[in-house]
Amino acid sequence: MGLRVGHEIWGAKFDEMMRSSSEIDPDLERYTVEYVFGDVYNRPGLDLKTRSLCTVAALTVLGRRNQLRFHLEGAVKNGASKREILEVLIQMSVYGGFPAAWDGLSTAREVFTKLGMKD
Amino acid sequence: MGLRVGHEIWGAKFDEMMRSSSEIDPDLERYTVEYVFGDVYNRPGLDLKTRSLCTVAALTVLGRRNQLRFHLEGAVKNGASKREILEVLIQMSVYGGFPAAWDGLSTAREVFTKLGMKD
Amino acid sequence: MGLRVGHEIWGAKFDEMMRSSSEIDPDLERYTVEYVFGDVYNRPGLDLKTRSLCTVAALTVLGRRNQLRFHLEGAVKNGASKREILEVLIQMSVYGGFPAAWDGLSTAREVFTKLGMKD
Amino acid sequence: MGLRVGHEIWGAKFDEMMRSSSEIDPDLERYTVEYVFGDVYNRPGLDLKTRSLCTVAALTVLGRRNQLRFHLEGAVKNGASKREILEVLIQMSVYGGFPAAWDGLSTAREVFTKLGMKD
Amino acid sequence: MGLRVGHEIWGAKFDEMMRSSSEIDPDLERYTVEYVFGDVYNRPGLDLKTRSLCTVAALTVLGRRNQLRFHLEGAVKNGASKREILEVLIQMSVYGGFPAAWDGLSTAREVFTKLGMKD
Amino acid sequence: MGLRVGHEIWGAKFDEMMRSSSEIDPDLERYTVEYVFGDVYNRPGLDLKTRSLCTVAALTVLGRRNQLRFHLEGAVKNGASKREILEVLIQMSVYGGFPAAWDGLSTAREVFTKLGMKD
Repeated sequence: MGLRVGHEIWGAKFDEMMRSSSEIDPDLERYTVEYVFGDVYNRPGLDLKTRSLCTVAALTVLGRRNQLRFHLEGAVKNGASKREILEVLIQMSVYGGFPAAWDGLSTAREVFTKLGMKD
Repeated sequence: MGLRVGHEIWGAKFDEMMRSSSEIDPDLERYTVEYVFGDVYNRPGLDLKTRSLCTVAALTVLGRRNQLRFHLEGAVKNGASKREILEVLIQMSVYGGFPAAWDGLSTAREVFTKLGMKD
Repeated sequence: MGLRVGHEIWGAKFDEMMRSSSEIDPDLERYTVEYVFGDVYNRPGLDLKTRSLCTVAALTVLGRRNQLRFHLEGAVKNGASKREILEVLIQMSVYGGFPAAWDGLSTAREVFTKLGMKD
Repeated sequence: MGLRVGHEIWGAKFDEMMRSSSEIDPDLERYTVEYVFGDVYNRPGLDLKTRSLCTVAALTVLGRRNQLRFHLEGAVKNGASKREILEVLIQMSVYGGFPAAWDGLSTAREVFTKLGMKD
Repeated sequence: MGLRVGHEIWGAKFDEMMRSSSEIDPDLERYTVEYVFGDVYNRPGLDLKTRSLCTVAALTVLGRRNQLRFHLEGAVKNGASKREILEVLIQMSVYGGFPAAWDGLSTAREVFTKLGMKD
Repeated sequence: MGLRVGHEIWGAKFDEMMRSSSEIDPDLERYTVEYVFGDVYNRPGLDLKTRSLCTVAALTVLGRRNQLRFHLEGAVKNGASKREILEVLIQMSVYGGFPAAWDGLSTAREVFTKLGMKD
């Protein structure tokens, strides 16, 4: 079930990610598929786009750039516009401080460029 | 302008908050009204309900309970349902760890009870 | 399965905890039982006492006092001596700073007193 | 040597603090006296007032309220004015976010009131 | 007004920074100029050198290296000596832990080398 | 005394580390040898392997990768098996969130490869 949700969010990229994750540790990969995507993201009650934006908010204030990169792509795939993503990052200057927002925006620019999203 | 946005989100409660904040420091209060509510929350491009849920996500992983309490009320006033708020908090177990989610849920229960929101 | 592990660590206290957690949110409680205790703590490869001490280390540097209180009791139930727990807390002054260690030690004293563990 | 520095900063209050700390753990107390006050605060190259303000900055963004309370008193004893302390706290809204600054200011008000420092 | 303060601290480097920031997001750049430099750093009541050292303290414990690099240069431009900066970083071992201090010192060495500040 | 403990944990690598640390700052190096290894790690009451695993737990949730790399090697030298280290990292998904665990596992893979520890 988590695999289906993962595909819904990231498409073919999900398999590639899981393959490389699996080399790191097959068990944490399994828990990610089962708990994160099977249990949490699969829950009704909140749409995937809003879930993605909340994740972007959390990872920005926590300063977890590797995962932020990955979830910024997920947010785009879940229908968040570039504008909406930038709004979340700017808003995080209030809660995590300006350095968190600057680091988040710099990561977002990399992702937008990679995805060919022009300004 | 920030005052208008503050009223839109919290109603009369906003004045009371600002009065007590003002006793702490009138300058930080002014910056909050000007920068946080006048500049950031007033921006188009993201609806207030989504902004509120992203704030709830950030404050939960940061463990800032005083502000979380306050923004949980704001989320309700901005149209987030109890279900949607609980979904964000549960999702934060993935990004900030289970203790963050437990603390967030315990704060949310206090707020829901205070606002008379039954299960 | 997670229930069994939970009982192994906290005994009857586990049911009481889960009952009160359940009032907060039955789903997060279920995930805690399934993922945290059923999947993670149930894994072979590391004894429960060492798992508990690592959790105490993490919660101390994160400053999550509610959960720290709870896991300090768990560490005692898993066979950690008062001395071993104090050693972990003192060591955390190096990694999370002295304020983390002081807050952790103050929480530990409350727990030791409650459990009637004399010096 | 650390004892002398501690007395310089907090006066008689230092003994009282150390007595109550000692009940928590005599070893961490000893390390605090030796390493924190004997080694670090005792170093030439930076005056005690600036050291105190930097500590206030760090504890504010980390959200360590117990220690912040204590070091706010230390800052006052080291010659920082109420205005200078408030400036550091307001500035932390930029680096640790507004919730950090609000929590810091609320703690500072308690300390200023306790010390009888009128506006 | 914030532009003037920015120039006071970083000189010509400020324009270059703002140009590259502007490519990331012109709005966050504007808020940085207006709120951070126009409002906060422009306030009387605390000298720029002490403000810089407090910022260095906060960024060190938060582990925000990109911004730390930038503010270490600002601290030098604001008159902080290499010795004073090192003192703040060493002191942060107490509040944010030794890893925070090590990372901060390693960043500082890069900046001092770049600025041609010999030991 | 701290030097002896450092050698016990890291062997010849310890001298090399201290030499490069010493270039960053000889005083922080001295405090690390004296306080961290001389005082803390040298204490009886907890074996070095468990101390190492607790340090790995703390650095993982704090996201301090430079130091984590270093202490993962220390854990191996102190007798922790690859399996035990992976268990601690997986467990940290519960306390610091999944991104902390993923980053920790990715760092661990680098270290295991460098040390020639096959799966």
